[in-house]
Amino acid sequence: MPLQLYFGPGACSFVPHTLLESTGAAYEPVLVKLHKQENLGEAFKAINPRGQVPVLVDGGTTITQIVAIVSYLHDLFPEQHFLPSEPLAKARVLETLGWMNSTVHPTFGHMLLPHKFTDDAALHEPLRRFNTAQYRELLAELQGIQQQAAARGDAFMGGAHFGPLDAYTLTLLRWGTMFGIDPADTPTLWAHVQKVAQLPAVARVLERERVPLSLYKPA
Amino acid sequence: MPLQLYFGPGACSFVPHTLLESTGAAYEPVLVKLHKQENLGEAFKAINPRGQVPVLVDGGTTITQIVAIVSYLHDLFPEQHFLPSEPLAKARVLETLGWMNSTVHPTFGHMLLPHKFTDDAALHEPLRRFNTAQYRELLAELQGIQQQAAARGDAFMGGAHFGPLDAYTLTLLRWGTMFGIDPADTPTLWAHVQKVAQLPAVARVLERERVPLSLYKPA
Repeated sequence: MPLQLYFGPGACSFVPHTLLESTGAAYEPVLVKLHKQENLGEAFKAINPRGQVPVLVDGGTTITQIVAIVSYLHDLFPEQHFLPSEPLAKARVLETLGWMNSTVHPTFGHMLLPHKFTDDAALHEPLRRFNTAQYRELLAELQGIQQQAAARGDAFMGGAHFGPLDAYTLTLLRWGTMFGIDPADTPTLWAHVQKVAQLPAVARVLERERVPLSLYKPA
Repeated sequence: MPLQLYFGPGACSFVPHTLLESTGAAYEPVLVKLHKQENLGEAFKAINPRGQVPVLVDGGTTITQIVAIVSYLHDLFPEQHFLPSEPLAKARVLETLGWMNSTVHPTFGHMLLPHKFTDDAALHEPLRRFNTAQYRELLAELQGIQQQAAARGDAFMGGAHFGPLDAYTLTLLRWGTMFGIDPADTPTLWAHVQKVAQLPAVARVLERERVPLSLYKPA
């Protein structure tokens, strides 16, 4: 039985989706319609009680959480070099992956789903506004990380190979465009994302998920 | 030059602090006085511009972020089995570690430092209240994970060996007690934490950081 990946269009499941697609291995991408809240329905909660994508299913077992799925795919497909093998280089990639996952991603959560942080609807808009400003700063910080990789002569953010940092960066920059952040405000990051989007595997996943790279509209 | 670990008393740096202490290797724990905001001062920001602990320094290089530091310590001290070596078992530990780091920990952030999520002081108390209720539920979910490990016959949450899940669980349960959550509300989790606290390495770190296991006071 091939691996299955439950993904939501444009969600952070884009990260394992593109990694899996780039392996060339057989797998089954399973669409979860987040806009119809299928992730909160009984059928999906039987797979992941937390109601979140991504979920990777290997035989009888499920794995959730980006960091865990990336580690598992790295172990299954070592020839893809999703993570460096040298301990310090690997820690450096996990440092940025951990920061994206524990800081940048939750900041976006306040913009998209403020009700997850307060049940007082009057607070949603101020929460969204403050965190959108924070998010702009985090994208600028992310651009600094991308520029350091470029300065080292690395083609990708984690080194010589396409990996989780590139896919997550594309996702995080896309998310900003949903809230009026011009990707051109971080020009080298935007150029990197556009380059990554042209990798055949990434282009196929963008098409399958039917998500445009930018939803930015000038005010 | 030995490894250095910058830690704040009772902060999540407790995780690498106890891991390092349990190796028996020489290292230098460096106290960062969070209550005096030393982490936001120029000297510390020269080490970590994000102003956060933990920071691990190995020779000329620094590593931040729990997930990255745990991975690095695992690679440096493989005989400690901080992470399982089998890919699926390792993914399972990283799944819980990632969830703690990206969900439980940020929820606590709203309770301790609500100004990081909104600059409107009137919103701080409602944000704290809502997230404290969420945090109770997350601790109950964490107890479920601990009970599954116990049901498998594992002495620790990640398997046969003390590891990052145990140290983080102790920290997360402690944090709840600062906001009126009775650790006895999650009795098997509390029993596990009390057992972990008696490990010689953990007991030494608790003493060095001068943090009590529980700050809970009945109302």
